[in-house]
Amino acid sequence: MPAQPPAGFAGEQLGRFVAASAWDAVPANVRHEGKRSLLNFMGCALGVARTPPIEMALRVLLPVSGKDTVTVIGRPERLDPFGAAFLNAVGANLLDYDDTHLRTVIHPTAPVAPAVLALAEQRGLPGQAVLHAFILGAEVECRIGNAVSPGHYARGWHITSTCGVFGSAAASAKLLGLDAQQAWHALGIAASQSAGLVENLPNGAKNVSVGNAARNGLFAALLAEQGYTAAPAAIEGVLGWARAMGDTPDMREIVGDLGERWEVLSNTYKPYPCGIVFHTVIDACIALRTRHALAAADIADVTVSGSQLLLDRGDRPATNSRDARVSIPHCAAVALLTGAAGLAQFDDPAVSDPAVAALRGRIKAALDPTLPIGAATVAVRTTDGRSLHMTVPHAKGSTERPLSDAEIGDKARDLARHGAFSGDIEAIIQAAWRIDALTTIGPLMAMLAELPPA
Amino acid sequence: MPAQPPAGFAGEQLGRFVAASAWDAVPANVRHEGKRSLLNFMGCALGVARTPPIEMALRVLLPVSGKDTVTVIGRPERLDPFGAAFLNAVGANLLDYDDTHLRTVIHPTAPVAPAVLALAEQRGLPGQAVLHAFILGAEVECRIGNAVSPGHYARGWHITSTCGVFGSAAASAKLLGLDAQQAWHALGIAASQSAGLVENLPNGAKNVSVGNAARNGLFAALLAEQGYTAAPAAIEGVLGWARAMGDTPDMREIVGDLGERWEVLSNTYKPYPCGIVFHTVIDACIALRTRHALAAADIADVTVSGSQLLLDRGDRPATNSRDARVSIPHCAAVALLTGAAGLAQFDDPAVSDPAVAALRGRIKAALDPTLPIGAATVAVRTTDGRSLHMTVPHAKGSTERPLSDAEIGDKARDLARHGAFSGDIEAIIQAAWRIDALTTIGPLMAMLAELPPA
Repeated sequence: MPAQPPAGFAGEQLGRFVAASAWDAVPANVRHEGKRSLLNFMGCALGVARTPPIEMALRVLLPVSGKDTVTVIGRPERLDPFGAAFLNAVGANLLDYDDTHLRTVIHPTAPVAPAVLALAEQRGLPGQAVLHAFILGAEVECRIGNAVSPGHYARGWHITSTCGVFGSAAASAKLLGLDAQQAWHALGIAASQSAGLVENLPNGAKNVSVGNAARNGLFAALLAEQGYTAAPAAIEGVLGWARAMGDTPDMREIVGDLGERWEVLSNTYKPYPCGIVFHTVIDACIALRTRHALAAADIADVTVSGSQLLLDRGDRPATNSRDARVSIPHCAAVALLTGAAGLAQFDDPAVSDPAVAALRGRIKAALDPTLPIGAATVAVRTTDGRSLHMTVPHAKGSTERPLSDAEIGDKARDLARHGAFSGDIEAIIQAAWRIDALTTIGPLMAMLAELPPA
Repeated sequence: MPAQPPAGFAGEQLGRFVAASAWDAVPANVRHEGKRSLLNFMGCALGVARTPPIEMALRVLLPVSGKDTVTVIGRPERLDPFGAAFLNAVGANLLDYDDTHLRTVIHPTAPVAPAVLALAEQRGLPGQAVLHAFILGAEVECRIGNAVSPGHYARGWHITSTCGVFGSAAASAKLLGLDAQQAWHALGIAASQSAGLVENLPNGAKNVSVGNAARNGLFAALLAEQGYTAAPAAIEGVLGWARAMGDTPDMREIVGDLGERWEVLSNTYKPYPCGIVFHTVIDACIALRTRHALAAADIADVTVSGSQLLLDRGDRPATNSRDARVSIPHCAAVALLTGAAGLAQFDDPAVSDPAVAALRGRIKAALDPTLPIGAATVAVRTTDGRSLHMTVPHAKGSTERPLSDAEIGDKARDLARHGAFSGDIEAIIQAAWRIDALTTIGPLMAMLAELPPA
């Protein structure tokens, strides 16, 4: 990394990078990680396609949708590209089961892929262009996130939403073939649309800001294509995005080593549909259960220890499915009881299961300031007086212990089943792994649609 | 004002106020000020309907517009309510000629009226419902703005955009007949969509955030109607809107004396299509020109003095129409040369007029810390050695020197002429003054549309 930030505006350099990026210069491992991100995304959106948040938003969006429509993942209805970008982003992030860029806690794909896929489907563009644009969008979004982390999220900004709009704008700019200047303006227009609050977790309002990030990034690029402009320093200026949001951006994070380091290589995929800080808690519980053949009746009480972040995020009861996904007692209880923490373990029946509720009541959280963020220790006192404990430093699915390609495929299968998807998930998985060979993205998008009721 | 903030969440109390507000309880002077605001708004949107920013955005929005369409002011094209809300808000604010709530510098009507009018036209609602919803939206938006002013704008937030979305949500909630709880959620969903940066003045990106405020407030209300929710303290919570944006909100400003004091009574209307801080500069120049019969050749140099705010906003050259509207030298030059500062004085021909440019070059700005914000002193040294000066404490159009109803009508006429509007501006003005008697808003909206080309 250079000692001095390279000269020029952040948006100017990002715009030039996006416009100039050649597919040949994207390394093979970066391309492959992009495919993993997209497949994981498709599974996540399929998993929730029949849920009320999707159907409620569809009722708002269908009447205002233009006639040139594209696929809503897992649905028979179609929407104009703005509506589809919004709704597919909502779906991808709805379960908190999508990918995570751990350094920023950004979910990179939800705000970016839906814009790219909608635009590419509408215009009959090839899969390689989709993958390329997505990779660039994720790059821009995560770099801007790096430049303002960790203060940005801590201050209340839902970083997936606030930075996602830049990713969507950059990706859409690439797909539209905007020049460097237009891409710069697109990023500046995105800055004036960046919004989303941590306070609104875990309410529907959070999904709205994620959906808007996808929609508004696409909107920014289309407006820039028509001639709309933004201020040169919209991102880093004195009255610009970062500083208004309370951050002093580290410009080197945004513009250093463009085209040399790739943020998508730091992307991770969750094996459990809950907040990522709880994953080591679940790993530890599953390991303790297996090693000591624990049954519920064996467990007197449980102490989950971790960083202040873990406690801030999850020291709360679980009364519904949304809360359960950010509840230490619930995550630990289902993992100890069932040895799993899949979709079924966070559904309402599991949340209201008396056995789960009883065990939740015997689980408490405690601060262990010696543990790094992300690590957890689970200590179980058994009814027969034993003290068992397990510390997990790195969760399954983290950069240190990544999911395999096969596990990402299995996760997509699970999600499709959970979403009662009637389409051909095997064909989707196969197409996703060779997305860069698809002449147009249309057939893959058609596979992702649910057939209309007969 | 109560010494203690009333108990309860900000959104809860605003939601209850909006849902419960009865037309009979809205005082006559409040209703009348609402009409003045709406007429001023219509004129502003008519004045720019054929300009590139409107036409560029139309090219993006027309292809995605649903078939159930409403009026785009001054245009033959129609858009779905979201698109129309966006574009009519862009138009209203494009010239910086719309209304101003001076305490917050919010332009109250641009983000609120377009959402209300679009929804009412689509659903065939009466004019009284439109006026009532608008007044409540302006109330909510300005109260939230009061609670975070002046720090909010100073920090880089384009307050018309960031607070406008609350106004649009509140007004849309009223028009949809949402209950208190739904209106509360609508405001919380609006909080997660609040965006817009001062850095992006005077670029198109600023218009995008104003348009989004109108569109997204409507979106928030429609989502809340379907069951979308937000956090109870989305506005004032620890990780909520105000604090994430860097403000400690004064809750009494938001919820004190609801239904007793009315913010729309503080609304003002510009006689000059430029930044409001320049209006006393223009008043002083016109007065000096008249009193001393000044011609350009008489003027050796000019010093415009005012607060730091005046200098921060306007100490810049003018090379195009947008910059001219926020340029002290341009505002002073046209007023001294022509005795006017109307639409023609800010058009490109005036900006590039050699006589105007020559006089701009002899005008400088200086700090006078003894002058309150909004006041200005203009000092002219004449070529024959005289020193003339004039201090104007309150601008024409301010709360101290409000435009008359007739002047607001004249302004609408000027704007319609400037926009080459072929419709019947007299009929529009008449209808606006009796909007609360209109059985449905449709006929007035039809009058505001431009006829399709023959």
